[in-house]
Amino acid sequence: MVKRFYVDQYVDRILAGDRVVLSRAITLVESTLPADQDLAQEVINRLIPHTGNSVRVGITGSPGVGKSTFIESFGNYLIQEQSKKVAVLAIDPTSQRSGGSILGDKTRMATLATNPAAYIRPSPAGKSLGGVARNTREALLLCEAAGFNVIIIETVGVGQSETAVHSMVDFFLLLLLAGAGDALQGIKKGIMEMADGLAITKADGDNHQKAEQARAEYKHALHLFPPAPSGWLPPVALCSALENTGLAVIWQMVQEYLTLTQKSGFFTRKRQEQNLHWLHQAIRYALEDRFFSHKLIREKLPDLEKAVAESKTSPFKAATDLLKLF
Amino acid sequence: MVKRFYVDQYVDRILAGDRVVLSRAITLVESTLPADQDLAQEVINRLIPHTGNSVRVGITGSPGVGKSTFIESFGNYLIQEQSKKVAVLAIDPTSQRSGGSILGDKTRMATLATNPAAYIRPSPAGKSLGGVARNTREALLLCEAAGFNVIIIETVGVGQSETAVHSMVDFFLLLLLAGAGDALQGIKKGIMEMADGLAITKADGDNHQKAEQARAEYKHALHLFPPAPSGWLPPVALCSALENTGLAVIWQMVQEYLTLTQKSGFFTRKRQEQNLHWLHQAIRYALEDRFFSHKLIREKLPDLEKAVAESKTSPFKAATDLLKLF
Repeated sequence: MVKRFYVDQYVDRILAGDRVVLSRAITLVESTLPADQDLAQEVINRLIPHTGNSVRVGITGSPGVGKSTFIESFGNYLIQEQSKKVAVLAIDPTSQRSGGSILGDKTRMATLATNPAAYIRPSPAGKSLGGVARNTREALLLCEAAGFNVIIIETVGVGQSETAVHSMVDFFLLLLLAGAGDALQGIKKGIMEMADGLAITKADGDNHQKAEQARAEYKHALHLFPPAPSGWLPPVALCSALENTGLAVIWQMVQEYLTLTQKSGFFTRKRQEQNLHWLHQAIRYALEDRFFSHKLIREKLPDLEKAVAESKTSPFKAATDLLKLF
Repeated sequence: MVKRFYVDQYVDRILAGDRVVLSRAITLVESTLPADQDLAQEVINRLIPHTGNSVRVGITGSPGVGKSTFIESFGNYLIQEQSKKVAVLAIDPTSQRSGGSILGDKTRMATLATNPAAYIRPSPAGKSLGGVARNTREALLLCEAAGFNVIIIETVGVGQSETAVHSMVDFFLLLLLAGAGDALQGIKKGIMEMADGLAITKADGDNHQKAEQARAEYKHALHLFPPAPSGWLPPVALCSALENTGLAVIWQMVQEYLTLTQKSGFFTRKRQEQNLHWLHQAIRYALEDRFFSHKLIREKLPDLEKAVAESKTSPFKAATDLLKLF
């Protein structure tokens, strides 16, 4: 009875936009205690009918490209000029939850953090990308239920985090610096082709002409690459936090993408596929967790992995041997 | 005792380069009978020390780009000019094993098929890409043990087959047609960034200038994309089956890649990572097979998938519910 009462409390207060309870629910999602997990899942399942009403935007880019600065300006623009409520989440599998990193996320976006129409949640800590990504996706649903209608998910570009973000957003924006070579420092192969839009940051002052040239080059290059299943050709925008330019153009880009894909049905299909992807991912992670935490497997795995890596035994033979122990 | 005798037979004859026994061993790999599977795994595991001594080249491209023609010319070039022994395998999850498709693979590369230094194996049939890919990888090992020192793996570009090929080859070649737009028909996003080299086919006669122009454009575009972890920038070559040009340049490209990556250690690291990838893939497929063939799961899954796709229930809740049944 107590539990049901608590579920109702979470549900009612989140739907009323109570950000203290929203934060507590996200903490519940991130908890590794089984009781917390059960409670979190019940809360989310109750809130599911109230989710899905936001624009989900993923943002990535190399260190130094100005991601935080961009997100802060973009968030403020969306609130002030577009009357949006904006939540900012992050996938950073390297972050350790500490006083420092919580403050870190909020201080690096100070003007947005204090805006009553914005909600900034620091990156969840976690051992595995799978866990961190799952926590982020559940936080996204909770933010939608709390009435935020633009959810920005930032990735620091570690490991497979871009793929995880790509599988939970509607629009994926890649931030780039002008200047060949340097522009791509820290961007992994495959990311460019995931992007629905590119934006060249710091396109101001002396840098403006270089940024214009980079835009022309990227536009041309994107033409040479395979078309997206949506039929959308990723545009390349310029922006500057210093001169506060480009934000409207980028929002316009997102709007055009939504119009096109909602009309064609691609938007709905993509969201449905993302839902199924998360179901199958969750099953896969659970099965692998059970397998790799099994005592005998834990004992045998390191030697077999070594033998397989060095081509002393066949991967399939090793897998069969391990599965017999399970 | 009989089994051990048979294992020895397979092993000895394959090591002696007996292509009839090689074919029988590949058929064993493709068999779904548990006894055949056990035997196949023992044979492969015995042959593992004799594998790894080939250059593994993956080839993909849109329908109509001339893949078969290219592979036939390239195979003949490697045999005649480079004194290689060449095996050609394919990953085609859509193919059904039938008299037609076996003949199909051999007739479309007629001059190569009759070359005593070449071995062409038609695509294995299979229900899942996972199974087909696994069969192809084991066939690759068997061909290496039989003394083939260039293994060409062709993909028809269906589903995730390029990713599977990419995870089993040293060098991945993308064939393209000149002519913007058309050039990319049938190529999926992400493939371009997997390629270690590009070759523009049918660069002959009136087409030559257009091909040269396409080469310049792709070279420039590839510069704008993130560098590969190997430090290698994919070159763009021209070739023509009609005028029999470009094959030496493409083989030179592969050689340069091998020299660079073997010197840096990337080559060995990539092969080790590929081995581990196959171990983990095999475990994953086996676990998922057990799960999804479970009676209760099979009964419940369709309704839950529908509810998840339509956002009526949370993917994580659905996964938890299913795992409780397992």
